[in-house]
Order: sequence, then structure tokens, then C-alpha cells
Amino acid sequence: MSADQSRSRDAYAAAGVDIAAGNEAVARYKQVLGQWRHPDQLDAIGGFGGLFRMPGDDRRALAASTDGVGTKILIAAALKRYGTVGADLVNHCVNDILVVNATPLFFLDYFATGKLEPEVAAEVVSGCASACRAHNCALLGGETAEMPGLYSPGDFDLAGTIVGFVDVSDVPKPDEVEPGDAILGLPAIGLHTNGYSLARKLISSDEWAAPFAGGMTYGDALLAPHPSYYERVRAIQKVARVKTMAHITGGGLLENVNRTLPASVKAVFEAARWEMPAIQQELVRRGNLTHEERYRTLNMGIGYTLVVSMGDAGRALAAVPGVAVVGWIEARNPGDEQVVIHPARDAS
Amino acid sequence: MSADQSRSRDAYAAAGVDIAAGNEAVARYKQVLGQWRHPDQLDAIGGFGGLFRMPGDDRRALAASTDGVGTKILIAAALKRYGTVGADLVNHCVNDILVVNATPLFFLDYFATGKLEPEVAAEVVSGCASACRAHNCALLGGETAEMPGLYSPGDFDLAGTIVGFVDVSDVPKPDEVEPGDAILGLPAIGLHTNGYSLARKLISSDEWAAPFAGGMTYGDALLAPHPSYYERVRAIQKVARVKTMAHITGGGLLENVNRTLPASVKAVFEAARWEMPAIQQELVRRGNLTHEERYRTLNMGIGYTLVVSMGDAGRALAAVPGVAVVGWIEARNPGDEQVVIHPARDAS
Repeated sequence: MSADQSRSRDAYAAAGVDIAAGNEAVARYKQVLGQWRHPDQLDAIGGFGGLFRMPGDDRRALAASTDGVGTKILIAAALKRYGTVGADLVNHCVNDILVVNATPLFFLDYFATGKLEPEVAAEVVSGCASACRAHNCALLGGETAEMPGLYSPGDFDLAGTIVGFVDVSDVPKPDEVEPGDAILGLPAIGLHTNGYSLARKLISSDEWAAPFAGGMTYGDALLAPHPSYYERVRAIQKVARVKTMAHITGGGLLENVNRTLPASVKAVFEAARWEMPAIQQELVRRGNLTHEERYRTLNMGIGYTLVVSMGDAGRALAAVPGVAVVGWIEARNPGDEQVVIHPARDAS
Repeated sequence: MSADQSRSRDAYAAAGVDIAAGNEAVARYKQVLGQWRHPDQLDAIGGFGGLFRMPGDDRRALAASTDGVGTKILIAAALKRYGTVGADLVNHCVNDILVVNATPLFFLDYFATGKLEPEVAAEVVSGCASACRAHNCALLGGETAEMPGLYSPGDFDLAGTIVGFVDVSDVPKPDEVEPGDAILGLPAIGLHTNGYSLARKLISSDEWAAPFAGGMTYGDALLAPHPSYYERVRAIQKVARVKTMAHITGGGLLENVNRTLPASVKAVFEAARWEMPAIQQELVRRGNLTHEERYRTLNMGIGYTLVVSMGDAGRALAAVPGVAVVGWIEARNPGDEQVVIHPARDAS
């Protein structure tokens, strides 16, 4: 159903997230959904958002995605910092439908808690509202549920759904990706909204107020915002033809980029080409994470990828500060993995 | 933000749901949302669903609503009956946007749990899929989140978002409601998806497997489905001009019907005109619920209301089995409550 079922094996399982269960759930969902498909449902790209033909307008489609914030929410609740998770969620949703090139229309939130504290709820929703406004996206509604018995007092969950639209002819065409193309990477700020069950295991709650790096506490670093890539992607699209894109969420580079490529090619990344944020370095060190664990659980510093021809790459770099060529496309031979990451100097 | 903030006072508060907190949250949301409104957002009816102008088509609007299943989910989880809550949720969402006369297009689910059990997740999603298909509505996507630390193993939460569309000229016009109009009621099956924190307090979990009434256990009665009123409303609309409608969810008749009426009129119900389901009778008896508590916490047997002229009412009754005239519209004097319920014989 979602990218978030796909997770790193050993370290993540030890943190209580079961990748085999996730994969089995996805397989079962496919079986359920395979029984019937609405004729107006269109093929999307890699499951990042659903596409549905707009009623009465064959040239346009609606794009929609539902997401949560994951257990980042437990850190926010413990530190009583309620202002940022709303924006994390909206930006996550914006980026997901951006993969099919959709422009946000409206968003709805779901806030559930064990004991409703109005000022907390309002601060969370206010974070959603600000991020919506930044995208000219209506906060069209939502649901606030007080559910004693399911959530402990002080705990809450937050999920949301975004709906956008796209001209059908503007949906990226991954089939155009070919060997020699460049992969552009947009930098991640921190963990965004994935890997938090692992992070909470490796950095325990009694450390969250302690100084970490760059004037930040561990809590600051763990709650660093999930950024929106909307403006930067639009700026790149003005100067380069973007063939496919991926939002690097749960599953990391290894399980997100592959979903947006044709089977005939592979993505080759070179980790020395970008910076790994301090919090990722800390988790890799503390957990002694294997290559596989790093790139399947964490974004490792890349939040969003775009594939363009090598000839277009230079213009993209010039147009948007911070963008880097982080890899390239090669032909894929039978048996090849679809995503290969050449390790940086500190790799296992 | 939602109808579900408004809840019965004493009994519900004792069950852990705080109506004052709910109202304060709504007030704070209004403040947050009042700061900016998207120009394509249209006025909806009573907050049952948001309306948004369809891009490139001024005659049509998209309608959207997010809902949860509430703590009915805890009963389903305890009894390991996972097949029905998905349909409860979809039907709840369908009914909400039906208030603005919208036809479902697609639905997305959010399933969150402490420990992912694939067969449970698939059974829940399968329930969503069946109810979607019954409405020719795509199950366009969703999110499955495994969040150890937030949810206990075995517990889960389920929320969903529906998107539909409506011709702007077909959105009901509550301003046409006038004294003498009839209120049609469609029967509730059980509690639907509201009042479960109270119900779980009054009927404890060790009773759920015990026989209750009509061959049902308490668990059966508590998990009775939240029905869709879509087909019956469409059938009534074929023979009667429907001026306004309300979906009777959290807040009961007292806090849902009022939101769909102009300030100049009041709704007068006569409880003897319909049947109260056995489970509601049981809760009223066990909790010794006051009139206020009954009609603000529970649906008390009415799941959906429609206002039509008295002249149209007969055709509606003939067209749809089970529909009843449950009340009428009167002029409202200053100081009058907007919803009045003349009690049935067993009232307090």
C-alpha cells in the first residue's frame, strides 16, 4: 500500500518494526485491491500517490496521498514541541504527490489523542495550516478524536491526506530514463519522518535535552523539519526536463528510487558526492549499521531525487542552490540490483 | 474542525471524553483557520465535509471528509473481529459528504498499529475495499504505519479520507427550509461510530461475549455496522426535493441537525415516531442517561435526517422502506433551542 512497509532488516526489527510483516501486508493488500479497480484510476509512479481522472475533464487528474508522521510524534510529545510536526506531515504529503508532478489543492488532518488538550491540538493544527498556506493549499477539514484507552494521556497520533491535480500530459514518464542520465539529489535536513523507531532505540529519551552538535540538542536534531521540495523541483523543471522523481521516505534510497525506474535500468549513487547530516552519522556510529541498514532505514542525507539527461544537469545545478549530481543511470543486467550505492569513506 | 468535538456532558466526561476541551479545540481551530482561507474553498453545510472548486470547472466542486472509527476499534480489536470496521469507516465518510450531495470518487485509509499483523491489516483494508466498491469508489491508496511505543501490541487505529464531487447547483440549500417542512429519518442500526467511550464504560469487556438480545451478543450489538445511506438518499431525491440533510454522528440529533438549518427555524422531533435500537435502550438504562446525555452522545435510532416539504414527504415514505417522518420544522423565537426532542414514553 505504501513505501513505509519496506524497511531495513536487522536493526529496524530490533527496534520493533518488522519488515517481513510489512512486505506481507503489502502483498495481501495487492491481493485485496487486485479484485477490483475503478476505471478512472490511473497508473501512478511507484506508489507515491494515487491518480484519478478528474470528473468531466480527461486532460487532468487528481492526485492524492495519505501519510503519518511515524514515531517522530513520540519525541515531539515527550519534549512538548507541538509546532513542527504539522508542517512535517504536510510537507511529506506535498513531496509525495510532487513525484507525479501534482500541485496541491487541499489537505485534511487526523489528530487522535488519549486526552484532548486544546492548546496542543491547536498548535499541531496550526503547524499544518502554516505549511498548507505556504503551498497555497486549503486546510479543508479534519478530524479530532479523543480516544481514551487507545492512546495514553499526553500521546497523540497525526495523519493527513493531500489532494492535488496535474495535467495528465505532465505526469513524468519514467520510460524515458536511459543509461547516462544524471540523478540529482536534494539534501535532507535530518531524518524527516522515517527511521524514528530505530533512532529512539539508539538515542534514548534521557539524552534528548543534551547538547549534540552545531548548537543543537539531540532533540533539536531529531525534530529537524521534513522540508518541502516543491519550490526547488519547480525551479529545476524550468530549466531541465525531469524524467522521473522519488521522495526518499521509509525504505531509503534502496526502496524508493527503484519504484520510479523502468526495469531496464539501475541507479548508481556515489555517497561521497553528498553530505551526511550529523544525526545520521550518529545513528550509523551508535548502531554500527550495515550498508544495507543505513540505506534502507534512513535517507542518509538525500531527501528527493530527480533524473535528468546529463546535458540538463548543469542548468539544474546553476538554478537551485544545494542540488548535486549524486549518481547516474546505467543499463541493468539480469540479476543486477536496481539501486547501487558506492559507499563513502566511512562505510562498513 | 469536526462535529466530533461536541459531546454529551456528564456521562461522556466520566467516560473520559471532555466536551469542554472539544469545544475549546474547535474555537482554537477556527482562530487558526480564520487567518487565511483559500479562494477556491466554498461554503459547506455544517462542517460535514469541505467543498473546493474543481480546477478548471466552475460548475463542479470536490467534497472531502476525514473520519475515524473512534473507540469502537477497541471492541473490534478485543474481539478480534477485523472485517467490519473498514466498512464502518467508509460508510461514515460516504454519509458525511452525502450531506452536500456529493458522489464518492476515491478513498484513502490510514491504519496504524503497535505491532503489524499482516492478516489483521489485510482484513481491515479488505473491509474498506468492499465498502468502496459498493459505492463505485476507488480505494486509491493508504498508509500502514507500525508504531511501537504509541500503540500497544494488538491495538490499532483506523482513519480515512473520502473525496467526491458535486455539481455546485446540486448542493442543498438550507435557506429554503421553512416552518411546516417535514423531517425524514433513516433508521440507525446501532451506535454506528459514536458514543463508544461511554458504551465501553457501561458495558465492560467481560460482557461482550455474553448473550444480549435478538440472538446477538453484546459484542455483536456494539459492532453492528455503520450503514451507508447513499442509495436511500438518492431514492428519496428522485421523488422529493431535499432542502437539507444531516448525518447523525458524534453530538447526536442535538448537535448535528442544528448545523444544517438556518438560524430562523428549529427542528422538533417526536421520539415516539421511531424505534430505539436495543443497544441504545440498554445504555440509557444502565447509565440512567438524562435526555441531554441521550441525544447528545448517541444517535438514539436516527442515523440520517432529510428535510422536505410536507407535501413531498408521502412520496418519500412510499419510495423507501424504513423511512419515517420523525419531526417537523417550526419558526424559531429568540432564545429557543434549535433542536427540540419531545421524549418517548420512557424518557427521564
